[in-house]
This record gives sequence, structure tokens and C-alpha cells, in this order.
Amino acid sequence: MNRPPTIKDVAERAGVHAATASRALNPATRGMVNARTASRVAEAARALGYAPNSAARSLRTRTSSVAGVIIPDLRNPVFPPIVRGIEDGLRDAGYMALVGNTDGDPDRERELVTAMRGRQIDGFILATSRRSDELTSSVPTVLVNRRTDNGGIPSVTADNAAGIHLLVRHLTDLGHTRIGHVAGPRDLSTGWERYRGYLDATTSLGLEAATDAVEFAGAFTETAGHAATLRLLAAHPSLTAVLAGNDLIALGCYSALAELGRTVPGDVSVTGFNDMPFVDRQRPSLTTVRIPHYDIGREAARLLLERIASPTAPAKRVVLPVELVRRDSTAAAQS
Amino acid sequence: MNRPPTIKDVAERAGVHAATASRALNPATRGMVNARTASRVAEAARALGYAPNSAARSLRTRTSSVAGVIIPDLRNPVFPPIVRGIEDGLRDAGYMALVGNTDGDPDRERELVTAMRGRQIDGFILATSRRSDELTSSVPTVLVNRRTDNGGIPSVTADNAAGIHLLVRHLTDLGHTRIGHVAGPRDLSTGWERYRGYLDATTSLGLEAATDAVEFAGAFTETAGHAATLRLLAAHPSLTAVLAGNDLIALGCYSALAELGRTVPGDVSVTGFNDMPFVDRQRPSLTTVRIPHYDIGREAARLLLERIASPTAPAKRVVLPVELVRRDSTAAAQS
Repeated sequence: MNRPPTIKDVAERAGVHAATASRALNPATRGMVNARTASRVAEAARALGYAPNSAARSLRTRTSSVAGVIIPDLRNPVFPPIVRGIEDGLRDAGYMALVGNTDGDPDRERELVTAMRGRQIDGFILATSRRSDELTSSVPTVLVNRRTDNGGIPSVTADNAAGIHLLVRHLTDLGHTRIGHVAGPRDLSTGWERYRGYLDATTSLGLEAATDAVEFAGAFTETAGHAATLRLLAAHPSLTAVLAGNDLIALGCYSALAELGRTVPGDVSVTGFNDMPFVDRQRPSLTTVRIPHYDIGREAARLLLERIASPTAPAKRVVLPVELVRRDSTAAAQS
Repeated sequence: MNRPPTIKDVAERAGVHAATASRALNPATRGMVNARTASRVAEAARALGYAPNSAARSLRTRTSSVAGVIIPDLRNPVFPPIVRGIEDGLRDAGYMALVGNTDGDPDRERELVTAMRGRQIDGFILATSRRSDELTSSVPTVLVNRRTDNGGIPSVTADNAAGIHLLVRHLTDLGHTRIGHVAGPRDLSTGWERYRGYLDATTSLGLEAATDAVEFAGAFTETAGHAATLRLLAAHPSLTAVLAGNDLIALGCYSALAELGRTVPGDVSVTGFNDMPFVDRQRPSLTTVRIPHYDIGREAARLLLERIASPTAPAKRVVLPVELVRRDSTAAAQS
């Protein structure tokens, strides 16, 4: 056949009226059709390669069964498993993901949001938000791996504070008392929550002078981590441990310490955050906190689907647990 | 305003007729409108947050400015930079990417194709095809990092044969003559082309008994590489070098050789393919071939857009160059 099959072709093959075939193929109305009929229609649709015209349905219902997923950069190893979890979570409900990258550029983000709204997407999952963002989209939105200070938008994040507590406790158990922090950007919730966690943990454990042994990296990257570590060690040469804002920053710590002729973990212990792929294979392998990337993505998809079903439900904040992963980048403090 | 802005609101704010505003905002008809008027309309649309209803346009024109991108698994480190390149390439032309993962399951792939076609996508970029696939989609399609034997579909791949030649030449320069191959799956063009490249290179360099020093891994994964390396070394214990089908398989070679008590590169040299992130940090750092992942993605987007513009144009096959990256996993053969 030269033209794509229509609902009439499907109905004819299944021996039912077109309206029945249409009801049988729409998940929302399938229950109105006898189960055997529905399965005969589904079989006919499969045999003919019939694809329901979602654009037409989209106009009628103003929904598209597509969610927009906006992330900073898919090449940051944190995001592929999150996006994969989102895709799997959406698929279970017949939804698909339009994916866009912003490189952290707010203009590019606005452009993407407009372009996606123009395609009638049913909701957004954003991994790009800043703490201060005032998100007031009329479209259902969920934040993933990020949240805003005002908390008005549902979010799924890892337990950043608990993760930092686990790391600081691990370091103090090893005898470290002079622990510095190369923090992530202050305007991102991940950077901010881990920084706050560092202050809380060092204070509650009675470590001195922690407040000023902090440098903020300009970004969650190896390069920014390298530069911030050099600044931190110049100001605090006697630190025996550095808590990095994430794994990429920790890799920057490695290279900065090598440049300064300090060994890891002999002279300085280093910790990361995320347990991204292959940090178990770094030299030395990296002590870090494992966050459940894939589950965070799936949970975000679930929250978004809930939100689409009832847009006025309270904005939940889901925080998933993390775990300490001890490896070779931490060792007993030199006395 | 409680309702989303319409084209009439934009027209009113810009002081033009609705038809003029509509023409000014449609890239296909913008040229019919005075440039100053067009920019005034664009300004009004931006100010109001107007999003053109692509679903309506989609029904009228039967295009959506969306491409379906189907890959095996975003968590395989090869794919994020390719997908990022595709997204950037599409975006330049006002297109977006719907992304789906198949885990190599043909049923899941068919499901995704049907679901995407139902959303009126304008074309497909597939990284999932088998060599034997008879793709006869009525929708414009481009293969990325894969091709089919019959060559009827445009494709963008790295120069696999040249990459293998570079690696074999590098190993023979180091004095290796007993070089085995842990190949990728035969039914994927990447696995097959590299295997053929290995046979060609070893034959043309006059190495003996190469044909049977091959084991095929069941998948491009570390686990499958580990198992296949154990089989290869059991059958050919005197090999001094192993050419792996890709970097993940090479990591499997590392662990299998460690299990056998053989050192890399002291006893056996190992090479990879792809130069995926962080293989420079493995122990030992991996000698491999760098393929331009991002450029492959961008080029695939370009080919798809060409194909959408003229669906009957000849099916181009674009092969991008690769380069040898020498690191610590290869060393002079023991005599």
C-alpha cells in the first residue's frame, strides 16, 4: 500500500466499525471495548503497521504524550543514566522524551522551552534550574537533581546533606581534622546543599576553622576544580583532606595536587560525589558517594505523570538515599 | 493573562494583521514579509511568550520539525556525545530530537518506531541497525555509527578499517607478531568492519595464523569482553597482543588478563577503539583509536535534514577519519 494505513483499514481488517477500532486503540477508552475485540483490533493495527496520528489527537486533546527534558549537557556523565531513567519511566505510560541541552545558558534554555511548548508537550523535566529561579510555568514541571529555594515545583534529588555527612565522618574516622572543601557553584542547589552540609558536619563534629577553608569552583568541571584547589591549598597549605563538590571537581583536585607535588592519599585525602562511571578506575580509585542516577530519573518521570494527571496537587519533594563508597583516595591522616 | 497568547495577540501588539504575523513567524514564509515588520512581530512574540502551535502546523503540513533518535543505551559512553551532536545539528534548522533506547531489543525498536511515527516525526536517526536490516521506511532515515550491507540508507560512520590498520601497524612496529582479536558482534557493522579490518591488516602485513586467533564477544560490553578474552587466551596462550573491538571490550581484556595473572602491557599489549571518556585514566591508560563522536552526530543531523528536503536524493555514505592515540597499554613485545 502506498499511503499509510488509516483507522478505517484497521477496522476493516478487524471486522469492526471505525469508531470501535479507534476506541480500542486509545488507552483512555479501551475499557469501553470487549477485550477480545480490542485484542483483534490491536493485532490488525500491528499487521498493517498502523500508527495513530498523535498530531490530530494532540489538537483535539491538547496533549501530545511528549515531555520536554532539559539538561545542561548530555556529555556530563551524571546525565545519561538520569535521562535513561526518565525515558523508561515515561515509556511505561506511553510518553516519550524530547531532549535538549543548554550548556547552562539561560537564553538557550528559554529558547528550548518556547520551542518545546510550541510542540504541545505535556510537561517539563528540568535539570538546569538555579536556586533562585522563579518557575511559574503553566505547563506541569518537575525538577531533577536540582531544586529551587522556594520549593514550589516538585523535585527529585539525592540526599546531598546526608552524603556529605557520611564523607566527613569517614575522614574524621581516619584522623583528619583539617578538611577543606572545593564546593560546586553556589547558585545550583547541588553545590549549595553540599556546601551547607560541609559546614553543618564540620561544625557538629567540632572541627575548627572549617568555614573559611572553602573555595567555590566556577562550574562542576575538572578544569574549574583544578583552579579552585590551587586557590584552596595556597590559602590553607596544611589541609590533609579535600572534600570535592562532585567527582569531576575531585579529578581536578587530583591534577592540582599532582602539580603541587602532593600525593593522594599519602599527603592529602580526596573525596568526590556522584560515583560517576569509571571513577572506580581512576588512579587512585575515588572515595565518593553513590547517588541513584537512574532511579532519580524514573522517579522524576513518575512525579511528572502525577502532575499531568492532577496539576494542582501539592508539589512533592522526593529525596533519594545515597551511600558511601570507600576506595583508595582516602587514607589515615599523617600525624 | 490566563490563557496562552495567540497569533492575534501577537499581531495586535505588533500592529499588523494576523496573517502577516503568521507569515513573519513561519521560517518558510518569512521572506514574504518586510524585514522590519518581521522583526517587530518577532519582538512582540517574544514579549508575550507566544509559542506557535506546532501541532496545528503539523496537521496542515504533515511535518513536526521533530526527528526520532533511536539508540541502544544512552549509558554506553559512545552515545551521549553523538546524541549531543545530533541535537546541536538539528537545532540549527529548528528541529528537536525525540530520544528512545532499545537495549538492542528489536521488538522494543519496532514499538519505538511506531510510537514516533504516530507523533508525525519528520525523520529517523538510528544507531541500532543490524547489517542485515532491510530498512524500507517511508520516513527519511539516516544511520549513525552503523550501516547496512545493502547500503540503501544514508549513514555516518567512523573509518573502522583505517583505525584497525593504525592499531595493527602500531603493534607490529613494537615487534608484535602474535596478535589476537576480541571482536564485537558480527551482526553490527562496527563489529564486522573492525573484524574485516583485522583480517586485512594482519594478512597484508604477513602475520601468520591470524584468521583463527579471533573470538567474538556477545556484545560491546566489558563483561562480554572479559569472557571472550578468556576463551581467546585458552586457545592461543602465546599471544602477545590483543586488539579489542572497542574500549569497553578492552576493559574486559584487562580484567581477564589480571585473572590469568598476565600483566598489561608487560605480558600482553591491549588496544581499544573509540577513545571514550576516561580511558586515558585507566590503569594502564588505554591505547586506542579516537573517533569524532560529536561530529558524527552533527553530520548525521545534516544528512537527515538534506534527506527531508529531498527524499529521493542518492543515499550518501559519510565516513569520518579517526586517529591513533598511543598510551600505556601497549609496549614492545617480549622476545
